[in-house]
Amino acid sequence: MSIQPHQIEFKVPEPTLRRLPWYLAYAQLVLKEGELYLSSTQIAKNIAVDASMVAKDLSYVNITGKTRVGYDVKELVDILEAFLGFTNSHKAFLFGVGSLGGALMHDNGLEQFGLEIVAGFDVKYELSGTSINHIPIHHIDRFSDLQKKTGINIGVLTVPVDKAQMVSELMIEGGIQAIWNFTPFRIRVPENVIVQNTSIYAHLAVMFNRLNAIKEDEKKRILIQKQNKLK
Amino acid sequence: MSIQPHQIEFKVPEPTLRRLPWYLAYAQLVLKEGELYLSSTQIAKNIAVDASMVAKDLSYVNITGKTRVGYDVKELVDILEAFLGFTNSHKAFLFGVGSLGGALMHDNGLEQFGLEIVAGFDVKYELSGTSINHIPIHHIDRFSDLQKKTGINIGVLTVPVDKAQMVSELMIEGGIQAIWNFTPFRIRVPENVIVQNTSIYAHLAVMFNRLNAIKEDEKKRILIQKQNKLK
Repeated sequence: MSIQPHQIEFKVPEPTLRRLPWYLAYAQLVLKEGELYLSSTQIAKNIAVDASMVAKDLSYVNITGKTRVGYDVKELVDILEAFLGFTNSHKAFLFGVGSLGGALMHDNGLEQFGLEIVAGFDVKYELSGTSINHIPIHHIDRFSDLQKKTGINIGVLTVPVDKAQMVSELMIEGGIQAIWNFTPFRIRVPENVIVQNTSIYAHLAVMFNRLNAIKEDEKKRILIQKQNKLK
Repeated sequence: MSIQPHQIEFKVPEPTLRRLPWYLAYAQLVLKEGELYLSSTQIAKNIAVDASMVAKDLSYVNITGKTRVGYDVKELVDILEAFLGFTNSHKAFLFGVGSLGGALMHDNGLEQFGLEIVAGFDVKYELSGTSINHIPIHHIDRFSDLQKKTGINIGVLTVPVDKAQMVSELMIEGGIQAIWNFTPFRIRVPENVIVQNTSIYAHLAVMFNRLNAIKEDEKKRILIQKQNKLK
């Protein structure tokens, strides 16, 4: 989930960048409901975040609210969308057209958030020439060539764990500057390469653990209730 | 990305639970390469994490390494997989068979990590009776009934943002105890319900921002180089 440290100073902290889409989602909802103005305390209350944090987060974005009424909702949506890069189209290559890779190629939602996967690459020759959701799949051998022609510098990494390091090195060698890493493997990259780790399976582990803890807690409470009745 | 606070005391901290899959991924790789033993310093070095953190994280799991040689790799893999809940099958319902929902139903990888989506629900009548990747899709009206029959208590939430709160309330009313929320909306739930937020689009915002910062940095450096040449 973290970005590789390097010498460049990032103006906006990562936690802020991760919360801004929550504010955007809420503002979009409010806009749909026909509200014209929205205050930071209203945002804070509705998404269960501290009001001072909302104000601080929004201070990184160039938005000024009106005294008493708050932010113009339409403006807030537009500015946040642009600030987060969702209105620009960022073209990307995907590496590893397996189950998760294929699933991501199926997800048109990515385009709404500014990411357009324009091609998938795989080592399997039988996949070359096929396509998923109108996105062509090529043999990995063609990547370097296609990168030179297109200048695409974002790569989505969905290969098996044991290929993650090797393929990421190949990606970087071929001109990829930002890797969206969906594998649970912690790839090592040069300091001028961006890595965004999104291991959805790791989130599953947290959910399973919490669900178990709740079950254990329930069992304990039932036991205590029974013991109390016996007293 | 965070779990709703409630009175139950969770034994394992969330950051630990999120790092353990990294150690597992690395151990699986090492196992495949035929190594028999693995030390926590070796793990730390290879995934760029502090060695004391690895040792502390693994202290929550019941594994004891041998002096000098470290952990038995096979044992480490088995114990971590079981601890993280990846070896158990957890059945789940999915709500909102749109682009992302459909994509997740396509992803067989989830099953390897312990999550089996057994049915999708949607409000669109034309989807009822169809299936994706052999997983049946039903009208949302059938959820409560099917929940009672199956006892399934995990729900994957992939509806549009403006439906997230409403559908999550319907899920909870029908018996769902853990919600894997893929929407960028911060749903409000009772304290005994687990929410795991996985907004993959929020990660995109971080990546776009970092990529931009690197570009700006490059421009600045080129400018400085030019200015230096002129001097």
